[in-house]
Amino acid sequence: MPLDASLAALLGRELGPGFTTAPAALTAAATDDSGLVLPPEAVFFPKSADEISRLMVLAGRHGFPVTPRGAGTGLAGGALAVSGGVVLDTTAMNRIVAVDAANLCAVVEPGVVTKTLRDAAAAAGLFYPPDPASLATCTLGGNAATNAGGPACVKYGVTRDYVLGLTVVLPDGEVVKTGTATRKGVVGYDLTGLLVGSEGTLGVITELTLKLIPHPREVRAVAALFPDARSAVATVAAIMAGGVSPCALELMDRACLGIVEELLPFALPGGEVALLLLEADGDPDQAARDIGRMEALCRDRGALAVLPAADAARREALWDIRRQISTRIHESAPVYLSEDVAVPIARIPDLIAALPALGRRHNLSLYAFGHAGDGNIHVNITGDTECRPRTLALARELIALVLDLGGTMSGEHGIGLAKRSFIDMELSPRSISVQRSLKAVFDPAGLMNPGKVLP
Amino acid sequence: MPLDASLAALLGRELGPGFTTAPAALTAAATDDSGLVLPPEAVFFPKSADEISRLMVLAGRHGFPVTPRGAGTGLAGGALAVSGGVVLDTTAMNRIVAVDAANLCAVVEPGVVTKTLRDAAAAAGLFYPPDPASLATCTLGGNAATNAGGPACVKYGVTRDYVLGLTVVLPDGEVVKTGTATRKGVVGYDLTGLLVGSEGTLGVITELTLKLIPHPREVRAVAALFPDARSAVATVAAIMAGGVSPCALELMDRACLGIVEELLPFALPGGEVALLLLEADGDPDQAARDIGRMEALCRDRGALAVLPAADAARREALWDIRRQISTRIHESAPVYLSEDVAVPIARIPDLIAALPALGRRHNLSLYAFGHAGDGNIHVNITGDTECRPRTLALARELIALVLDLGGTMSGEHGIGLAKRSFIDMELSPRSISVQRSLKAVFDPAGLMNPGKVLP
Repeated sequence: MPLDASLAALLGRELGPGFTTAPAALTAAATDDSGLVLPPEAVFFPKSADEISRLMVLAGRHGFPVTPRGAGTGLAGGALAVSGGVVLDTTAMNRIVAVDAANLCAVVEPGVVTKTLRDAAAAAGLFYPPDPASLATCTLGGNAATNAGGPACVKYGVTRDYVLGLTVVLPDGEVVKTGTATRKGVVGYDLTGLLVGSEGTLGVITELTLKLIPHPREVRAVAALFPDARSAVATVAAIMAGGVSPCALELMDRACLGIVEELLPFALPGGEVALLLLEADGDPDQAARDIGRMEALCRDRGALAVLPAADAARREALWDIRRQISTRIHESAPVYLSEDVAVPIARIPDLIAALPALGRRHNLSLYAFGHAGDGNIHVNITGDTECRPRTLALARELIALVLDLGGTMSGEHGIGLAKRSFIDMELSPRSISVQRSLKAVFDPAGLMNPGKVLP
Repeated sequence: MPLDASLAALLGRELGPGFTTAPAALTAAATDDSGLVLPPEAVFFPKSADEISRLMVLAGRHGFPVTPRGAGTGLAGGALAVSGGVVLDTTAMNRIVAVDAANLCAVVEPGVVTKTLRDAAAAAGLFYPPDPASLATCTLGGNAATNAGGPACVKYGVTRDYVLGLTVVLPDGEVVKTGTATRKGVVGYDLTGLLVGSEGTLGVITELTLKLIPHPREVRAVAALFPDARSAVATVAAIMAGGVSPCALELMDRACLGIVEELLPFALPGGEVALLLLEADGDPDQAARDIGRMEALCRDRGALAVLPAADAARREALWDIRRQISTRIHESAPVYLSEDVAVPIARIPDLIAALPALGRRHNLSLYAFGHAGDGNIHVNITGDTECRPRTLALARELIALVLDLGGTMSGEHGIGLAKRSFIDMELSPRSISVQRSLKAVFDPAGLMNPGKVLP
């Protein structure tokens, strides 16, 4: 039901100054990085689990939907209000409760920015590995809700691997703690794991206990240019099967390199060249040895150039290339769609080889880059304002191909709104019906982030 | 309802020669490593998911319970039939379908013995890290069902961290696939994670896709003897916070050392001494450097002796001490209870310090050993045949203490039957009610391993 003026006034009285219907707040909450625009009817900025609990009780009483939101950096529209109601913005709950060096864990509120925790951990000699591209702005609550990934996941695993326990407000307002403060715990079903990656559809995360590990003493990076994407991805497979554990193994195809040409530390040759960005970390000599092994594998596999980053500034310059690619693709055309497929490592060449014909068939530009070390390739699609139906047709065909290769339609971005109409291509009817029933256990009234994930 | 002779005859006809009511089979299925004895009415040894599916359809039609079982090495009674019915023994489904070096994963049937996969992976230069103490006999299906741990988990994580995807027969006989063959996947709720650790109460695992990593090139071990348990566990905390990643960090208290005295590579001194077994792995010089750092930390913290294992045979001898402790405690008294608590690393000293008074108060012998690096201490309780009520009283008091220290009642053994009456000490009523509802989603008739986990 719509949030009319009298209900909004009541919510304002009950919830205090954190509740607003100011147009600027509604506009800010209407977008994320998916390109979709869906304004809510109100926004609430809680300061505590208790305030979230109060909102949920009111939502149940008056029947309005609540859409939890972190920094709104998601690419799948998961944080947008599909049917109005209240966006619950957790960014004001941004306290690092503890970085506990003795117990190798951190306790944080959901609005803490990922980089803020990584920096605080590093100051204590500790490492929080998950590093989504948006780490300078995204929040840990959002990372957990989407089970965020990033380049480091090839060595260190995804967000789920670092969430030991959660405090969660359930859709009826009750607060539940899940998991443990210890590294191991097998008491009952894994509610923590079920909530991580549930995209805010089962409850609102109000506190996270996160695992930390010793900080690597050194990181070394190298860029390697290959004559074609096929030889680059064959090298990825050789590295992953070669007994080295890279802490990043990123691929950028010719289309990507073209839009960042002036940033490259080499003249871009003709032909379908591709670039790998490789990193190794650990004790200094270990990192040096591993990067040396990877350089040798690159040369053996026909790299045209192998360019080690001699210092931190040059390493940062390589990552700037990688980051600028996303940004510039996004800004290069009126319509932009970020697919986020993952395939078994040995099938990446088949995926990459199929892309040019796919783009031509639908008359759209395709860019491929991303976390080749775990088979997670971001395929970005751009076109003019009239092309939206064609992008969706291409996405459907791409997903069918990826599933055929034994992969998945989303490695780290999630389903949200953007991929919801494709989910039955990957999950069986029974898997979907089980998941619907799980949703009903947590949220029988369907008020928590409705219209997301499940079709 | 009881499985009477006519129903048993029907099941024999429908299910074929894998179904048996032979007394020897019932006796074998009546026990695991918990010390409990609960014979089922029949045992079924399926060869395929299809046969399991048929059993579950018959169970639904005739209303008898089914208890899935691997090798029966569990310590919590999870694989025992509480209310008769059929034990579903998966050990005949023991095929390694693939060790896929190119994609760093393995596909296995549930009855594959853990060590068999570890050896097959090692032959391909790959590593499957989870290493429960029973790894030479336990099965991967059982490991996944219980989210098994082991010494290597301090560095490499638990079984859940290695399960990418599952095929599962649901209680109504339908087959569902969960997860992916890729290292990342965020499509829908994490059914894989929910099934891992669910102790066979939600479905029967019929195939597992497991993540493999590069095999470390070398392992180094050292034993360090301390004047008391307090200084040993303080050293554990110093190592874990000291920027080293041991791949094993095991503690054995004075009581444990006393029963393996003739195996020790040193004369056991008087007083409350304690032993640490420490390991580091990686490239040879990295493993050597890490073990050197740990040796130095042991000396700094007052170790009486630091004894590196000079070769593989001496390393194996140290692990034999660790393994013999479990076996000999088990055999030392008519009643034996294995508690499996975990506390934050910095609280291990408080836990260890409280044990002697606890044992005296209940007039029982206590042994403490285990995975100190992740706070997971096995507290074994032994006594005479009359002591069962006292062991339970002690266990309750121990769990209360552990929860007080911010810990959990089970780090890796699970709840099963043995800890079911304690679970409400750790989980809130709402957490338990949510978990009951999740169970009902999968198994509305309550025929899948009934009487386990939830109170």
